[in-house]
Amino acid sequence: MPNFRPKIFRERLHKGYAQSMELTGIVAQEKSRYQRIAIFDTVANGRVLVLDDIVQITTRDEGAYAEMLVHLPLFEHGRGESVMVVGGGDLSIADEVLKHKSVKEVVLVEIDERVVELCREHFSQVNRKAFRDRRLKIEIADAFEYLSRAEARGRFDLIVADRPDPVGPGKALFGDNFYSRVRRALKTGGFASFQTGVPFYQPWEIAEALSELKRQFPLCGLYLTVVPTYVGGYMALSWAGTHKPLGTKAGIAAAARRFAKAKIRTDYYNPEIHAAAFALPEWIKRLIPKARAR
Amino acid sequence: MPNFRPKIFRERLHKGYAQSMELTGIVAQEKSRYQRIAIFDTVANGRVLVLDDIVQITTRDEGAYAEMLVHLPLFEHGRGESVMVVGGGDLSIADEVLKHKSVKEVVLVEIDERVVELCREHFSQVNRKAFRDRRLKIEIADAFEYLSRAEARGRFDLIVADRPDPVGPGKALFGDNFYSRVRRALKTGGFASFQTGVPFYQPWEIAEALSELKRQFPLCGLYLTVVPTYVGGYMALSWAGTHKPLGTKAGIAAAARRFAKAKIRTDYYNPEIHAAAFALPEWIKRLIPKARAR
Repeated sequence: MPNFRPKIFRERLHKGYAQSMELTGIVAQEKSRYQRIAIFDTVANGRVLVLDDIVQITTRDEGAYAEMLVHLPLFEHGRGESVMVVGGGDLSIADEVLKHKSVKEVVLVEIDERVVELCREHFSQVNRKAFRDRRLKIEIADAFEYLSRAEARGRFDLIVADRPDPVGPGKALFGDNFYSRVRRALKTGGFASFQTGVPFYQPWEIAEALSELKRQFPLCGLYLTVVPTYVGGYMALSWAGTHKPLGTKAGIAAAARRFAKAKIRTDYYNPEIHAAAFALPEWIKRLIPKARAR
Repeated sequence: MPNFRPKIFRERLHKGYAQSMELTGIVAQEKSRYQRIAIFDTVANGRVLVLDDIVQITTRDEGAYAEMLVHLPLFEHGRGESVMVVGGGDLSIADEVLKHKSVKEVVLVEIDERVVELCREHFSQVNRKAFRDRRLKIEIADAFEYLSRAEARGRFDLIVADRPDPVGPGKALFGDNFYSRVRRALKTGGFASFQTGVPFYQPWEIAEALSELKRQFPLCGLYLTVVPTYVGGYMALSWAGTHKPLGTKAGIAAAARRFAKAKIRTDYYNPEIHAAAFALPEWIKRLIPKARAR
């Protein structure tokens, strides 16, 4: 007899709390050299990529994540030519970067070739254009190791750390050495942006990131986005700059002018959201180490 | 043999999606005349009130909801004396209102006496001060009916609709008649604020609320908060004004001055968040009916 019970994916990233999504179909499921990869379609959340049972991207809300890691620093920078993506094998970050006409190269360094291949096949809605863009160079390599190569030194105007959670193969992307390597790979005037966890369930990530960043960069700080399937309300992002801060009045105004000129269609980002992203609720302010990062 | 499996509460408010919380203890559980009431302690979310299996309040994030429904309109108003709370039997909204020295009376109209009694006993962390405040009047009544009484006519500077989701006993608090009754109960210059759902999973609520509000009020609009356990990222709130809009530059600046003077401790609200709450991501802007509400 066929089994009519709907299949459920349950994510237990946080202690004592879980989210579950009802599936309408399983698209791919395999174990790569690095992790378990699953792609499925859901009733409420579109198509979902899961690595080691943790949600990485859904077609319904990927913009809230990718646009906010990319457009804030790139529109404030204004002349970003060379961009590195740490991880990001689904290409959602690269796709946003490639919308910027100033950009001449995007180096995406993903450790797991199978993530890139499966996402090319099953997330074309997100990455079709990016895969065709000649400015994109995909390096199948360990981003941590890549950052110390001679070719990376002082090369990038923006480095986006689309790192997973600080568990499993992504762990090296959270240590002291990671931030110093990012620093060395940036051009003068460059920015870096980092996924920094969901503070409601991972409050320690903010203090960890900001105290490391402060040691390596003259300027750094927090900003926020809201990605429904990175469950827990706000997601913290952090930024670091070699010479300029992100989120000043002048920077936000310049970004607004450039955004208007660029005529990019976004699902999340706009100039009001750019400015609003630097407003922190009181409970998040209290998670910032006392010697303030900004 | 004792059963060591942890107890799990699972909320299935949205089709195809659920959240679950691991319990450390059940504090109260009963069926009142109107609904099933449960209060429990959890590993990740503090103490939680659940009505008909839907989360109403948790001690970890109630501020993100109550403060945003109350402080934005009250600080912009500046001289609010009389406030009505529709529902709100846990008193979290009333507690925020009572922090305003201008306020002389809070009329809380809750249909279910047992919610008030159980919350008095088990949510004293949230409502101890409010219960002792002589400015608070609790009316056990149907708020929809109360609003049409002679005593309610033109009485309030602020009406906060701490309504549940548009299912079950709260359904009447979403119709056309509800908004017109709120209008009649407001003083000149008054504001109303409304819970308007989690747009990621309940996108239709925005269009419904704004088109009804537009019919009844000269001025109305949307703003946002982020309450982790109202799962799905942003929660939409809506506001309506009889004479003044909410969220103008001047209104926000006046609110900031009044907040600084009031010396209120908040968990979520601050002047930057006040301003940021009116910034809408593109995907939420697209949910607003074309003949814009504001």
